[in-house]
Amino acid sequence: MKHLQQKIIEFRDARNWKQFHTPKDLAISLSLEAGELLENFQWKSSEEAVKTNLENIKDEIADVVIYALLLSHELGIDMEKAVVDKIKKNEQKYPIEKSFGSKKKYTEL
Amino acid sequence: MKHLQQKIIEFRDARNWKQFHTPKDLAISLSLEAGELLENFQWKSSEEAVKTNLENIKDEIADVVIYALLLSHELGIDMEKAVVDKIKKNEQKYPIEKSFGSKKKYTEL
Amino acid sequence: MKHLQQKIIEFRDARNWKQFHTPKDLAISLSLEAGELLENFQWKSSEEAVKTNLENIKDEIADVVIYALLLSHELGIDMEKAVVDKIKKNEQKYPIEKSFGSKKKYTEL
Amino acid sequence: MKHLQQKIIEFRDARNWKQFHTPKDLAISLSLEAGELLENFQWKSSEEAVKTNLENIKDEIADVVIYALLLSHELGIDMEKAVVDKIKKNEQKYPIEKSFGSKKKYTEL
Repeated sequence: MKHLQQKIIEFRDARNWKQFHTPKDLAISLSLEAGELLENFQWKSSEEAVKTNLENIKDEIADVVIYALLLSHELGIDMEKAVVDKIKKNEQKYPIEKSFGSKKKYTEL
Repeated sequence: MKHLQQKIIEFRDARNWKQFHTPKDLAISLSLEAGELLENFQWKSSEEAVKTNLENIKDEIADVVIYALLLSHELGIDMEKAVVDKIKKNEQKYPIEKSFGSKKKYTEL
Repeated sequence: MKHLQQKIIEFRDARNWKQFHTPKDLAISLSLEAGELLENFQWKSSEEAVKTNLENIKDEIADVVIYALLLSHELGIDMEKAVVDKIKKNEQKYPIEKSFGSKKKYTEL
Repeated sequence: MKHLQQKIIEFRDARNWKQFHTPKDLAISLSLEAGELLENFQWKSSEEAVKTNLENIKDEIADVVIYALLLSHELGIDMEKAVVDKIKKNEQKYPIEKSFGSKKKYTEL
C-alpha cells in the first residue's frame, strides 16, 4: 500500500496538482468515482454488469482506491492501520452470535 | 493488501454474509460509505472538518477500502494490479506537458 | 408538479421503459445524477463552478428532480405533500431557538 | 413548486442559515441525501425496501427535492422550466424509434 501511495504522489507531483487537492475536494472526488463505479450496475443485474463492464469496474475501483490513498496521505492517515482498526470496531459492532446470517444494521441488532 | 483482504473475508465468512454480497450491492455500499466520508465535510472547510472529524474520516476511508477489497475479491480483481494499471492509463490521459498545473479534465485538455 | 410528472411518465411510456424502472434502480439513478451535479463543483469554488457550468448545473438539477418524480410515481408518493410533511418534521428537529445561526446536526443540538 | 420553494426559504431564513448555503455545499448536501435515500435499498430487493422503509424513502425523496429547490433558488434557476427544458433535450437524445424498449445510454444508441 505504501508503495502504491508513493507512485500516486509521484504522479500528482509531476503534474503540480497538490495545490488542488484539499481534503474536501478529494472527498468529493472519491464520492464521484464511487458513483462512476456504481453506474456500471445501473439498470443491470450484477451478472449483466460484470459481463459487459468488468474492465471499467476494475478501473473505477482503482480510482476510488487512488483517491483514498491521496486523502490518507494528505491527512497523515496510515490506511493499512485504519482498515485493521476499523475491522476491530466492526467486530464489536457486529458480534458473531447476533449478526450471523443477518443483514440488520448494528443499530437494529 | 492481500493480507487485509483475507482478514475482511474472514470477518465476512464468520458472519455468513457472503449471501448478501452481490457485486451490485457491494457497489451501492461503497458509494454509501463514500457519502458518509463526504458528510464529514458538509458545511465545513477542509480545516474545520479535519479539526473536528479526523477520527471519523479515518473510519470512513477504511470502510470505503473494505468495500473496494470485498468487491475486488468477488470479481477476481487484483486490486494492487488494478491501481498500477490505472495509474498507467492516467499517465496517458494526462500527459505532463498538457496537464501540468491544470485542473482540466482529460476530455478538455 | 403533477403536470411535470405526467410529462415524464409520457416520455417514459413512449419508450417502453417502465420495465427497467424498479424503485431500487431509480434510487441508484437519482444518486448518480446527484453525483453528476456535484461534479460541476469538483476542484472549483462555488463561484468558478457557477461561472463555467451553470447550464449543466441546471440540467443535472432537472435530472435529479425527474428521477425523484419517477420514483414518487412508482411508489404512490405525493411529492408535494412529502415535501410539506418533511418541512414540518424539520421544524421539530431544528427548533429556531436552538438552531438559529448554527450548522450543527439535530443530533448535536 | 414556487409555493414549496417559498416555504423552504422561510424555514431557512428563520434559522439564519443562508450564510452556510453556498452552491457547492448545497450540491454536496443534495448528494448526501440521495445516498440516504439509496441506503433504504442496501442489501434489499425493491420489494423488501418498500415494504420496510416506505416512510423513510418518502422523507429522503423530500430532502432531495428540498435541496434541489434551495440550490435552484440560490442560482436563479426556475426548476419547473429546467425540468421541461431537460425533457426536451432527452427527447432529442433518446428518439423513440432508437430507444424503444432499450436501456442503452444515448452515447451507445
